[in-house]
Amino acid sequence: MREVLKIFKIGGGILDDPDQLGRFLSELARVPGRTLLVHGGGKGASQMLQRLGLEPQLVQGRRITDAATLDIVTMFYAGKTNKQIVALLQQRGINALGLSGADGNSIRATKRPVQAIDYGFVGDLSEQSVNTALLHQLLQAGIMPVFCAITHDGQGQLLNTNADTIASALARALAGAYAVELHFCFEKDGVLADVHDEQSVLAQITPEVYHTLKASGAIAAGMVPKLDNAFAALAAGVEKVVIESALRINEPVKTVLCRS
Amino acid sequence: MREVLKIFKIGGGILDDPDQLGRFLSELARVPGRTLLVHGGGKGASQMLQRLGLEPQLVQGRRITDAATLDIVTMFYAGKTNKQIVALLQQRGINALGLSGADGNSIRATKRPVQAIDYGFVGDLSEQSVNTALLHQLLQAGIMPVFCAITHDGQGQLLNTNADTIASALARALAGAYAVELHFCFEKDGVLADVHDEQSVLAQITPEVYHTLKASGAIAAGMVPKLDNAFAALAAGVEKVVIESALRINEPVKTVLCRS
Repeated sequence: MREVLKIFKIGGGILDDPDQLGRFLSELARVPGRTLLVHGGGKGASQMLQRLGLEPQLVQGRRITDAATLDIVTMFYAGKTNKQIVALLQQRGINALGLSGADGNSIRATKRPVQAIDYGFVGDLSEQSVNTALLHQLLQAGIMPVFCAITHDGQGQLLNTNADTIASALARALAGAYAVELHFCFEKDGVLADVHDEQSVLAQITPEVYHTLKASGAIAAGMVPKLDNAFAALAAGVEKVVIESALRINEPVKTVLCRS
Repeated sequence: MREVLKIFKIGGGILDDPDQLGRFLSELARVPGRTLLVHGGGKGASQMLQRLGLEPQLVQGRRITDAATLDIVTMFYAGKTNKQIVALLQQRGINALGLSGADGNSIRATKRPVQAIDYGFVGDLSEQSVNTALLHQLLQAGIMPVFCAITHDGQGQLLNTNADTIASALARALAGAYAVELHFCFEKDGVLADVHDEQSVLAQITPEVYHTLKASGAIAAGMVPKLDNAFAALAAGVEKVVIESALRINEPVKTVLCRS
């Protein structure tokens, strides 16, 4: 029987609030078994760009990563945020080790081809992107890998990469060796049946139920690409996908996406 | 017989010059056997502090690291510089993996006690600072660890730490398992008998010769603490200390410090 590996992904809000981040990391330290963390960036990188007079450029909600922006996001994600999280996990007795995709060639990406939009130094992942041997070795040594959302192309170029995409790619790649649970952590307790009712958390969503909910417009627009991504991960061999509050990962309230 | 491990330390000048850094990394990729790299910070962090209106504070040549400065140096050393070096080594076929001391609890330090000067968030190392088991595992997996000069205290606090000190501490700690060569890389080809003559590289220095040279004032003042540190490492079990040009590590011109 494959060992369980729980991959947690945290993003925006919680990274901007040191108190909440500390509470999440304390909960994470209590999760039994093998775990892995992927973090996005908070508002810090955008604020730093503004302080330096470099306006963040967004097209369709995606950051355009020119060379100066890549420098700053690499500093922020791989430097400040990643190392702070690692140090706070060490404080909590967890042997965390921070990684960008360049480290140990753990995640190799391809610079996104220029089409209608030139996204700049943004990396896309493929089925072969993840160095599963290295991650397996770290996990078996009792280490918690902590990924920031920076990858590389193997040709010396760092690339900014979506953190949800990284979490899904890791989950899929490690699904061969582990029974992988992919946990997307948010402010809310899960997927809501009624966006105006915080208590309306759906305990479980099958592909059929998701199809119906999506068609009826009940799912918040921002959640649709995340859930599409999550069901694709399930179809690709990931055991379970969970949508939950970052502050309540050890409590039963959450939404579990399942294959059928 | 213990395997040879070559630890290289690079600092200031070369980190500020992308062309020279690329040339050094190409030479490093050609060094046979197990290798490990420690890098200091270049001028980038100071320039960033100035752009943000935070004047770098130096006392007796040492940076005073307040909380805002620690944030910036962590971003620069652990983020930008470390990840760029790792990506460039990957390009050169070397499986490099970047580390701060917090990562994998690889180097644990103690915040320097406040005496005449409060250095702020600066870490001092001890005999027990280095996690040799992790480094041994990475080296045996064919990975080149690449350290920036940031450590942690195990209590959630990152600490700015002198890169020469880190290189020496790693060399001493790994001297049990490996025949360690510690290579300090500079602009010059080695220790000069005459500071005005670049050709006067001393091929070898014993403790006795060093004592005489130091007493006569022949050794450049800036080199004295570095050489004191180097001879202390030799006395502590390091096999060989080498002072050489970062651009000529695979050529015979260099200064070798030896025990006798």
